[in-house]
Amino acid sequence: MSGKRRLGVGLIGTGFMGKAHALGFTIASRVFDLPFELDLVSVADVTAESAEAARARLGFRKATADWRELLTDPDIDIIDITTPNLLHKEMALAAIAHGKHVYCEKPLAPTVADCAEMVAAAEKAGLVTQVGFNYLKNPLIFLAKEFIDSGEIGEIRSFRGVHAEDFMADATIPWAWRLDPRSGGALADLGSHIIACMRHLVGPIKSVLAETVIHIPERPVSRGAAGTRAVEVDDVARAFVRFENGASGSFEASWIATGRKMQHDFEIYGSKGSIVFTQERLNEIKVYSTGGDIKSRGFRTIWAGPEHPPYGAFCVAPGHQIGFNDLKAIEVHEFLQAIAKGGRPTTDFREGYEVQKVLSATHRSARSNEWVEIG
Amino acid sequence: MSGKRRLGVGLIGTGFMGKAHALGFTIASRVFDLPFELDLVSVADVTAESAEAARARLGFRKATADWRELLTDPDIDIIDITTPNLLHKEMALAAIAHGKHVYCEKPLAPTVADCAEMVAAAEKAGLVTQVGFNYLKNPLIFLAKEFIDSGEIGEIRSFRGVHAEDFMADATIPWAWRLDPRSGGALADLGSHIIACMRHLVGPIKSVLAETVIHIPERPVSRGAAGTRAVEVDDVARAFVRFENGASGSFEASWIATGRKMQHDFEIYGSKGSIVFTQERLNEIKVYSTGGDIKSRGFRTIWAGPEHPPYGAFCVAPGHQIGFNDLKAIEVHEFLQAIAKGGRPTTDFREGYEVQKVLSATHRSARSNEWVEIG
Amino acid sequence: MSGKRRLGVGLIGTGFMGKAHALGFTIASRVFDLPFELDLVSVADVTAESAEAARARLGFRKATADWRELLTDPDIDIIDITTPNLLHKEMALAAIAHGKHVYCEKPLAPTVADCAEMVAAAEKAGLVTQVGFNYLKNPLIFLAKEFIDSGEIGEIRSFRGVHAEDFMADATIPWAWRLDPRSGGALADLGSHIIACMRHLVGPIKSVLAETVIHIPERPVSRGAAGTRAVEVDDVARAFVRFENGASGSFEASWIATGRKMQHDFEIYGSKGSIVFTQERLNEIKVYSTGGDIKSRGFRTIWAGPEHPPYGAFCVAPGHQIGFNDLKAIEVHEFLQAIAKGGRPTTDFREGYEVQKVLSATHRSARSNEWVEIG
Amino acid sequence: MSGKRRLGVGLIGTGFMGKAHALGFTIASRVFDLPFELDLVSVADVTAESAEAARARLGFRKATADWRELLTDPDIDIIDITTPNLLHKEMALAAIAHGKHVYCEKPLAPTVADCAEMVAAAEKAGLVTQVGFNYLKNPLIFLAKEFIDSGEIGEIRSFRGVHAEDFMADATIPWAWRLDPRSGGALADLGSHIIACMRHLVGPIKSVLAETVIHIPERPVSRGAAGTRAVEVDDVARAFVRFENGASGSFEASWIATGRKMQHDFEIYGSKGSIVFTQERLNEIKVYSTGGDIKSRGFRTIWAGPEHPPYGAFCVAPGHQIGFNDLKAIEVHEFLQAIAKGGRPTTDFREGYEVQKVLSATHRSARSNEWVEIG
Repeated sequence: MSGKRRLGVGLIGTGFMGKAHALGFTIASRVFDLPFELDLVSVADVTAESAEAARARLGFRKATADWRELLTDPDIDIIDITTPNLLHKEMALAAIAHGKHVYCEKPLAPTVADCAEMVAAAEKAGLVTQVGFNYLKNPLIFLAKEFIDSGEIGEIRSFRGVHAEDFMADATIPWAWRLDPRSGGALADLGSHIIACMRHLVGPIKSVLAETVIHIPERPVSRGAAGTRAVEVDDVARAFVRFENGASGSFEASWIATGRKMQHDFEIYGSKGSIVFTQERLNEIKVYSTGGDIKSRGFRTIWAGPEHPPYGAFCVAPGHQIGFNDLKAIEVHEFLQAIAKGGRPTTDFREGYEVQKVLSATHRSARSNEWVEIG
Repeated sequence: MSGKRRLGVGLIGTGFMGKAHALGFTIASRVFDLPFELDLVSVADVTAESAEAARARLGFRKATADWRELLTDPDIDIIDITTPNLLHKEMALAAIAHGKHVYCEKPLAPTVADCAEMVAAAEKAGLVTQVGFNYLKNPLIFLAKEFIDSGEIGEIRSFRGVHAEDFMADATIPWAWRLDPRSGGALADLGSHIIACMRHLVGPIKSVLAETVIHIPERPVSRGAAGTRAVEVDDVARAFVRFENGASGSFEASWIATGRKMQHDFEIYGSKGSIVFTQERLNEIKVYSTGGDIKSRGFRTIWAGPEHPPYGAFCVAPGHQIGFNDLKAIEVHEFLQAIAKGGRPTTDFREGYEVQKVLSATHRSARSNEWVEIG
Repeated sequence: MSGKRRLGVGLIGTGFMGKAHALGFTIASRVFDLPFELDLVSVADVTAESAEAARARLGFRKATADWRELLTDPDIDIIDITTPNLLHKEMALAAIAHGKHVYCEKPLAPTVADCAEMVAAAEKAGLVTQVGFNYLKNPLIFLAKEFIDSGEIGEIRSFRGVHAEDFMADATIPWAWRLDPRSGGALADLGSHIIACMRHLVGPIKSVLAETVIHIPERPVSRGAAGTRAVEVDDVARAFVRFENGASGSFEASWIATGRKMQHDFEIYGSKGSIVFTQERLNEIKVYSTGGDIKSRGFRTIWAGPEHPPYGAFCVAPGHQIGFNDLKAIEVHEFLQAIAKGGRPTTDFREGYEVQKVLSATHRSARSNEWVEIG
Repeated sequence: MSGKRRLGVGLIGTGFMGKAHALGFTIASRVFDLPFELDLVSVADVTAESAEAARARLGFRKATADWRELLTDPDIDIIDITTPNLLHKEMALAAIAHGKHVYCEKPLAPTVADCAEMVAAAEKAGLVTQVGFNYLKNPLIFLAKEFIDSGEIGEIRSFRGVHAEDFMADATIPWAWRLDPRSGGALADLGSHIIACMRHLVGPIKSVLAETVIHIPERPVSRGAAGTRAVEVDDVARAFVRFENGASGSFEASWIATGRKMQHDFEIYGSKGSIVFTQERLNEIKVYSTGGDIKSRGFRTIWAGPEHPPYGAFCVAPGHQIGFNDLKAIEVHEFLQAIAKGGRPTTDFREGYEVQKVLSATHRSARSNEWVEIG
């Protein structure tokens, strides 16, 4: 017995993200000295069969086709939501109503009002929440933030970011839930990551001027089907951004960037230096400083190592590299620390709500072609 | 004697670009089988001393403090203008009036009307013109254009470009002619290069939505001086772009990108592939194709070689690399070919005018924050 | 209940590699459909305290200060050895004598005779073995092997490899077990990885001509101590290699390569193409083919994705990247598959023995400065 | 008139290197403030036609099919030899006998005795010589040398270098003069560059242990011919190297490295830092330092700029990049400075002789498989 308090987890959804979360919990419990003894209690999916299949695979004790069962399970302390974002609000509010902490994938919910309701409920209940902005949970992003906050690169002047992939680039890919106009589009799906990044590293956003574009206006109704269905959500979204601290910037979200698998890139330019990162090489970051002899200046490529916490939890030696699922473990760790200490993760529901405000403003600006202030 | 017709050159301006042009002529005459025997006749600069100093250094026969002398010099066939862009129009029109072909640095002139007047004069006179969009004169940019034009990467959907340097990033750099609001700013100085690139590779631009930002609002009057002078031109400019062929895109120009020396970068995404380039590594280009076995797909890094004309003119073996001044030699070669054959360089005054229309629309959009159609 | 047969694991050693193995088992059981239900039974370490501390952290049920207890534990089917390599033989032979499958870190043992004894015992007992050549368990190394075996890059002509790190570059790092001449040196510690790589991708090695160098001839007896102790093992080892298939090559091992954290790099040149890889960027590999239009040729950078098994077990989407501990999970998976199916992992004890023969020949050649045939 | 003393050039050979030298002279005279007024007097080639064709193209005044005519031309001060290396000695000795300074391509001559004779003649005559080790004439290599000499990376411990190209990788490429056993092979042709690099940056070489390999044992007699001819020279050469200062190292030369066009790479590891360079990206160099906060350490990518002389002679702004022919111009500049000041270029005949001694020792070692001391 570890003597630690047990903390029970109930997972809703067993797809891409459901598995990543399960791995996050499992890895976190091995690499970190967690404040709790994690208990993967129950997993819910659409059918009993898929739930049961996931149960064994993902390491849970129980399975159910009714996610509401998790709410009343006394063993469960955390509800982990990895379903499409249209479903997040209902599930999160129910979880909160039952006194559960909530871990939820991004984007938090389709509308700002939805998010606000979720934040209010969680904060009123005094529960801890976490949103899956996993790319921020990189030891080197922590380093970037440390450099920025300490003034190492001076006053931040400009930001350029992109989150581009190509999973929708093939025009024969059929219509699917990602294209549902109530929640979908490259901006919501991918742009939310880069917005979270901007807020995390540069600070609050004051206003945006945006455009969205549909490059593949119709897609097959389903794989191999003859009929087509109109696409109403953006393939590409672009925005100019003004930060409250005076910095300016831009970002782009695209899911039709042929050849790109994880172009989550940013460049931050300050008065005394700059930082350049791409998620395509997540274990390295480039930092430039104006100090020192001019002939020696250049972007330093810093590789992740134990000197960049919490890399050392995964490996005591530098250069060995962490992967995507490890980012999820760090996300879990932060969440559990906040539960233990009564604090707030940096990417809790309130932060998810703030990101959603920017997303919403970006959508509005794309319709009006005017600068929209973040409320 | 080569038996070739002699062609005389008169150069105005002996600074950074004056020297680059002189080198361009000199190198071109060694590496290409030019249609003319070049004669570097005379060079004009602000003072007789600076002109004479440049004469010997740059390989010209004569020097003068009065650029108008070049106009009436019967030995001179080409007037080459490398002065600040506020002076281009007067000089170019005078040259044309005297029946000289004109080679002029970018941006062509501060206003669209200026450019239009210059184009009209040159075309009416049947003279050949060339504008110094040197980054397009890269054998690998020719390859990119060939790939795009042949459909190798399919229908072009999106473009993302930037031209960022840091020569104005230090706030103690004093006010100078580059900051003159009649012609200056990062957009005019650097953005013109990326606009020319977009037009060259993707095609005509339909409209833009832009913003410009001043991050260093005042600068010392002069080096070391106590007083400051307000900055009225953009440090950073950003624009969304719609192309006539339906592609969308964006570009940024910045001269405060700390650490960047030549970030003239672009990414072009098509339905069947993509092309990624940075001038920071001008002898390589990355190309992605969706064809072939999925497990073998990736961006190919293509190094410049003799199979990419006119690289072979500089070196018969691949991998040896060309440099910036060699791009100028290719620019000169294209200009002289057009003179010999009566054709038009791809970047003649008309193209400079088209670029200026986009620049102008970008400025207007930045003021109005509305989409502006290119006239 | 999964209905799968249970398989019990006993782990000896809880340091860097002990933890990595524990993570390997844990991650493997989540991402793969393993043929067994893994049971992390017991962990042994030098003291009861360290063993107990590791037990909870690494997810085992029991802990002991006596590794021999694992041998007689009826719940244990696999003995996993992560101790210094001087101890491997005794532990492995004891495990085999008790009918346990053995998973052992590299290098397998200090001498060829040791390794031969271990192989003979394991093969006679019909037990499955696995050695921790983790860098080979990369989906992209599987791809490289597939390309080579299918003739995609033609006949292999030359190989150049290195495994360089810098953890001993600081001359103030004190003497430690890694410097024990009975087993140590950069060649044994790091060279074994690159030898395994050569054998895996290019094939059996016929002969070597080598040298070893000591650049830091003495080190402090212990951290901060005044006295020094002579270093008798190599800081750098280099060898020329002839393969049985006629290819030639070279490798280097160094632990004083200042700035290098994981330079496990290789370049393989064939008659029709080539492959270039660095563990510094383990999720990408570069492949060149001589086919197609010459102007389009270049090294393709291929990013790991689901099309490169077993990447898809970790993440259904490309570009998300796997990390070092995930390589260990793949190693575990291969081991368990072999146990289930009665096959041999590619890196079993016999392969560890073959690698040791090359290591030994390299050491002998470094002493004699003559070509040494691999026995 | 510049008032400078005229210096006449006679060029022998008009192929790849003949052209590069002509460009070197021409570019040098434009970018540098040379101590002489260069006069490209006469060019010699095998036939009168080829000489005359080159004359006009390369900018010379006269042409001849008899190189000996240059010797007695009173206008000529420098004889520039760009013929195959079997011819160097005869030409250089003749030039020296006529009191001409000599600029000669590498490798200086096929044998050490040849080189010694050339050095003795030149030194006795008090004439200035220069050998075409052009890759050393890179502003960033000057920077590397400065860093090494100033102790910035500490005591040098190890070197790893390669010069690999693929121009002989295709087995259907016919026999040619490069394969002549009197002078040829990858070691002589390409290895000489990396040997010169080692000597320049790390220092004198004490001994080598080498091997050479022929991977394509026969080639067509001529293009498309049916018959084949045995290849007697190395396709790949490899050597271990001990430097006089105690550093160890290795180098490889290959002309069958499929896909490589200019892999002239080296890595230098010192006790306090390291330097990594590839000619594939000749305008950047990577430098690592152990100083400063560990979490900020990394390889700095330094781009060539005016702060790295003589880059500024080519371009006043950083980031614009120089190319191969510009390296030749720097080589010329160094040569002319030495003539003017009576000094020695760093790569004069004596240096060519020292390189040849290493080449020769490498060949002998490859035959004996023993360490060979450099005499």
